[in-house]
Amino acid sequence: VYDRARNAVNAAQSWVIISIAGVFIGVNAALISIITEWLSDLKMGYCSDGWWLNQQFCCWEIDGAEEGACSTWRTWSPLAPGRWLIYVLFAMVFSFVAAHLVRSFAKYAAGSGISEIKCILAGFVMQGYLGGWTLIIKSITLPFVIASGLSVGKEGPSVHVACCIGNVVARMFSNFSRSQGKMREILTAASAAGVAVAFGSPIGGVLFSIEEMSHNFSIKTMWRSFLCALVATVTLSVMNPFRTGKLVLFQVTYDRDWHFFEIIFFMIIGAFGGLYGALVIRLHMQVMAFRRKYLANQGVTEAVVLATLTAFFGYFNRFLRIDMTESLAILFRECEDGGDYDNLCQTSAQWRMVNSLFLATTLRILFVVVSYGCKVPAGIFVPSMAIGATFGRMVGIIVKATYRAFPEFGWFAVCQPDVPCITPGTYAFLGAAAALGGVMRITVTVVVIMFELTGALTYILPTMIVLLMTRAVGDLFGTSGIADEMIRFNGYPYLDKEEHGFNIPVSRVMRKEVYSLDGTGMTVHALEQKIRTEQVSGYPIVSRGPGSTLLGYIGRNELNYVLDKARQTQDLTPDMECSFVELQEDVEFTPHLPPTSASPAMGIEDHDAVELIETVTSDNVLKLWPWVNRAPLTVAPQLPLEIVMQIFKRLGPRIILVEQYGKLQGLVTVKDVLRFTTLENSRARPWDEQDVG
Amino acid sequence: VYDRARNAVNAAQSWVIISIAGVFIGVNAALISIITEWLSDLKMGYCSDGWWLNQQFCCWEIDGAEEGACSTWRTWSPLAPGRWLIYVLFAMVFSFVAAHLVRSFAKYAAGSGISEIKCILAGFVMQGYLGGWTLIIKSITLPFVIASGLSVGKEGPSVHVACCIGNVVARMFSNFSRSQGKMREILTAASAAGVAVAFGSPIGGVLFSIEEMSHNFSIKTMWRSFLCALVATVTLSVMNPFRTGKLVLFQVTYDRDWHFFEIIFFMIIGAFGGLYGALVIRLHMQVMAFRRKYLANQGVTEAVVLATLTAFFGYFNRFLRIDMTESLAILFRECEDGGDYDNLCQTSAQWRMVNSLFLATTLRILFVVVSYGCKVPAGIFVPSMAIGATFGRMVGIIVKATYRAFPEFGWFAVCQPDVPCITPGTYAFLGAAAALGGVMRITVTVVVIMFELTGALTYILPTMIVLLMTRAVGDLFGTSGIADEMIRFNGYPYLDKEEHGFNIPVSRVMRKEVYSLDGTGMTVHALEQKIRTEQVSGYPIVSRGPGSTLLGYIGRNELNYVLDKARQTQDLTPDMECSFVELQEDVEFTPHLPPTSASPAMGIEDHDAVELIETVTSDNVLKLWPWVNRAPLTVAPQLPLEIVMQIFKRLGPRIILVEQYGKLQGLVTVKDVLRFTTLENSRARPWDEQDVG
Repeated sequence: VYDRARNAVNAAQSWVIISIAGVFIGVNAALISIITEWLSDLKMGYCSDGWWLNQQFCCWEIDGAEEGACSTWRTWSPLAPGRWLIYVLFAMVFSFVAAHLVRSFAKYAAGSGISEIKCILAGFVMQGYLGGWTLIIKSITLPFVIASGLSVGKEGPSVHVACCIGNVVARMFSNFSRSQGKMREILTAASAAGVAVAFGSPIGGVLFSIEEMSHNFSIKTMWRSFLCALVATVTLSVMNPFRTGKLVLFQVTYDRDWHFFEIIFFMIIGAFGGLYGALVIRLHMQVMAFRRKYLANQGVTEAVVLATLTAFFGYFNRFLRIDMTESLAILFRECEDGGDYDNLCQTSAQWRMVNSLFLATTLRILFVVVSYGCKVPAGIFVPSMAIGATFGRMVGIIVKATYRAFPEFGWFAVCQPDVPCITPGTYAFLGAAAALGGVMRITVTVVVIMFELTGALTYILPTMIVLLMTRAVGDLFGTSGIADEMIRFNGYPYLDKEEHGFNIPVSRVMRKEVYSLDGTGMTVHALEQKIRTEQVSGYPIVSRGPGSTLLGYIGRNELNYVLDKARQTQDLTPDMECSFVELQEDVEFTPHLPPTSASPAMGIEDHDAVELIETVTSDNVLKLWPWVNRAPLTVAPQLPLEIVMQIFKRLGPRIILVEQYGKLQGLVTVKDVLRFTTLENSRARPWDEQDVG
Repeated sequence: VYDRARNAVNAAQSWVIISIAGVFIGVNAALISIITEWLSDLKMGYCSDGWWLNQQFCCWEIDGAEEGACSTWRTWSPLAPGRWLIYVLFAMVFSFVAAHLVRSFAKYAAGSGISEIKCILAGFVMQGYLGGWTLIIKSITLPFVIASGLSVGKEGPSVHVACCIGNVVARMFSNFSRSQGKMREILTAASAAGVAVAFGSPIGGVLFSIEEMSHNFSIKTMWRSFLCALVATVTLSVMNPFRTGKLVLFQVTYDRDWHFFEIIFFMIIGAFGGLYGALVIRLHMQVMAFRRKYLANQGVTEAVVLATLTAFFGYFNRFLRIDMTESLAILFRECEDGGDYDNLCQTSAQWRMVNSLFLATTLRILFVVVSYGCKVPAGIFVPSMAIGATFGRMVGIIVKATYRAFPEFGWFAVCQPDVPCITPGTYAFLGAAAALGGVMRITVTVVVIMFELTGALTYILPTMIVLLMTRAVGDLFGTSGIADEMIRFNGYPYLDKEEHGFNIPVSRVMRKEVYSLDGTGMTVHALEQKIRTEQVSGYPIVSRGPGSTLLGYIGRNELNYVLDKARQTQDLTPDMECSFVELQEDVEFTPHLPPTSASPAMGIEDHDAVELIETVTSDNVLKLWPWVNRAPLTVAPQLPLEIVMQIFKRLGPRIILVEQYGKLQGLVTVKDVLRFTTLENSRARPWDEQDVG
């Protein structure tokens, strides 16, 4: 009964933490949105009614009319060159502020953070990556970066920020700060909330946490993601930062259905997505290698130069000048109700538009390749979508023009004469999905996010077809998602989720020279010596004498803890003997010990906090056995490497011991496996050799 | 290179199989839909233009007008009692045909099949459950059952039918028929397609396969589900069985937003869902126990009696008389455009409607409890949704009436005076989601399915809130989903996905008396004797002499195979010695053997077909060692049971050997774990003891 009650309290606690984190994630996202919009508008002008108002609120009363009609909103200069200059100037200032803050206070705030969080969720420890400073600096700089006009998005960083909030909140509860497994659950839930608030897409967030982030899927984790995403989204919708009362960012109602002949064009768009992904990832990796070599300490300069260039050239293209989300909204819209931004829908302007869209696509790809990864918070979700949307709209306009030119052509026979047959907005929508799918290599999530973004339910099948095509083309080029490639580039210990066949036994990969401890007969002095000189995270315990029988495993932290404790409370002499083996008399004296006191080698969710027992020294023996994990995970040396990789991925141990007939043969960690697989893969990926090696 | 090419061919093959299965699933679903609709209408009348036309096609030209306006559609009798009699008569005939066919040709076609497929996907083998006969009989009888008016749905069985198709298609390819792992992947994908075509909800199908069906989540499996669901849905939409060109079954456009004060009512609906789930599951289990005891051989009679009773009473309630999907469509609709079925929207009729809806809810619950699980194909998805919808609509009408009565009340202050404030249709929608979530205990899937069914994107947050409440209430009552409870009731070997804490080592659960084989020195005669008398699926190999060192594991099938082979090709004398251990000379002669010839004890996806080597007898020794798995999965006896359960769930082995210091201590299977957990749980679940024990 007591156990059950404690479990209930624990469960309730995690729900409370997740809800609190969700609320903060929602509030933070709302604040970031509001500040971003204000800063973005500041580049164009200011509100004479009050400097704190952005263009939308400044012109709140004037609705639906032309842009020029709002007289309280003043542009900075009456002359076009003046406006351009100020636009560029603001971009410089904003990017400088952001890059400088990141450099001075929180280096970890740079980049999108998704690949690092993936590693953290897989068990890799990065001290401070999810700390309070990262949170604060990333939240403050994000609006500046977006407003500076750099071709980067705030959706990726929003996931990082959400995870920081989850971490900071959960750390306050000792149950969680002590258990890595529980912490990871909270972080997974927080990442779902991050996507949920970034896109206003709660279910998309949950799926993102399943498809991209989490290493082990479990129903419990999914539930927590669901709750966290829900709370965060409700909070955001209560805060209602855009005062539209809508979660849907780009609401469109495609009331016309698609035609089967359009599938061929959808497939072209899908192929573009795959190509785009492969191209951007490859180029980006080369830029990153260059950056690492030559620009390691030029973070601030680099960001300012990039922002200046982006603003300098971008100002002259109608789609690059405006905010990316704004341009997405414009491109998705149907032509009928007010979607005619800058003659986008006019047949007379169609070829001019195609050129403009093509230019926007190309330039934006260039900007994204160089900007993503510079030393400011930077995501690649929305930039990719913007690129896909310009490309898709371009295809849509071309198809529409073809239809107008040859309405009698066989394919177009299904078109009804009185209804517009081709809707270029839907092509933009599909293009955005394709580019996002191509660069991240996620699919179900993309379908759901696109849905929740727009509400375009009739286009579910085309979206799926497009993403299938994207995936097929991407596979052809043999790249994985940008997050996984970044992980590989940075050399983090992470096994990706794809399955490989190597056809070799684990003994080929394992480390054979293993530092181990004798079960009995070692002096405290020798033990301290060993700990000091050998940098390993733990020791297998083996029996003394011929043929080292494996008895258990003890972590370095546990060893240090016990030695410290013993030094404080008892008299510890250097020549005292250490015993890692349970003796008959111990069992009689302490019958109520848990079966395994701790399981560091397993690393699998340690649900119950480790109950620490007082050390006992008696008969001049330091008893270390209560801290020994007597059931470490072991495999036989003949086991195929694939299965060992599956054990790492699905059970998440840090170390697997290799044992045959009870004798220790070696040990294997994720790093050992990665060392091997990197060698195997390096031929296929030229950029790995250039820089990691 | 050769390996890579073979892998590519294998991968391509599985994509082809999945696509073919998808097409067949789509075609089959379309046919079932068409026949079901025709049979359903036949109860009411016939088309004078042609007996093969259903009411919709018979009245195709007459559109939008009143029901009476279609003169080609004739009811069976001009008198109401006559119509009622014929209605009941048809129900009897249909149910008799269905139950009789099931009993005569394919017993496995009864029920929904979801719990059995869950077990099959977890590794349990049920010969014939997914065979051709089951497929044919279930496809034929499903329309009869639905048309008979029994309170059962066709969505659950549709998953079973889809899996049968996947199995039948995949069996034709030797690669797949030989590998259980690959077969399971195909079945998972097929289950996604089954839900996709049943609801017209491809993404919902993919999520269903993740959340409910699949045991191990992997990105690869998700991809296959995605493809299969897409192909099946496209096929269905090309077939276009309803001639509406829509996938969305109950398209609604809720253009009015919800108000925050409504959340309290949404939570009531959510709580109803949880209560409904717990109640139905408990009652249903009791009915099943009763049925098992007294009605084991009365399948046909039972189905006919139930159908007769349902028709007899149901005819008098306006919501029970019509088809369940039709009533869902009516209840979901807003009142404004043509949603006024039988005065449902009239204020004057509101209390009459509340009574009628309450009666429909209660009666339908009763019908569902007794009908689900009778010996015909029967699902519980849509009946649950229908129950939830009637309840939800009732709540909605009451809230609306309250608002009309007290428009000045504080809560209602946010309502705008000129727009209807409460939309009872949305309450019905949420009720359907709640009841479905309550009975199946799936959430993300339900949200997505509800979306894809209706396109009601603005209601995503309320849907999530409702399902959260449902889940909380359901947890309070301590039941799991109906599929899991059925698995437990039937005693299938299945570890559910929830995690438990038992705090005991695996040594308490393992089987200690293990039949094992000596590594050397056993005669063929003794071996044959052992195989004949001991009914086990495989043997651990241990060294002869004191302290049985574990050397490996060999499956029973492998043993039989080798003995048969040896008998055919060589002279096998009964006193020949069997050797399970590799000798030095063997290694020299056969250096190119794979590291492990087969891994039956692991049971983890066996990607490469086992290459069988010719047996060699030399020096009067039968060499069995190439078939020995020398790297079986082993754990130490101190390992906590929870971790062993995780190994079973995440890695999916059939047997785990327990070993300490190289010596075999025992073995543990899923059944051993279940025997223990059932004992632990039985106190909480009274119905388990009554019948399973």
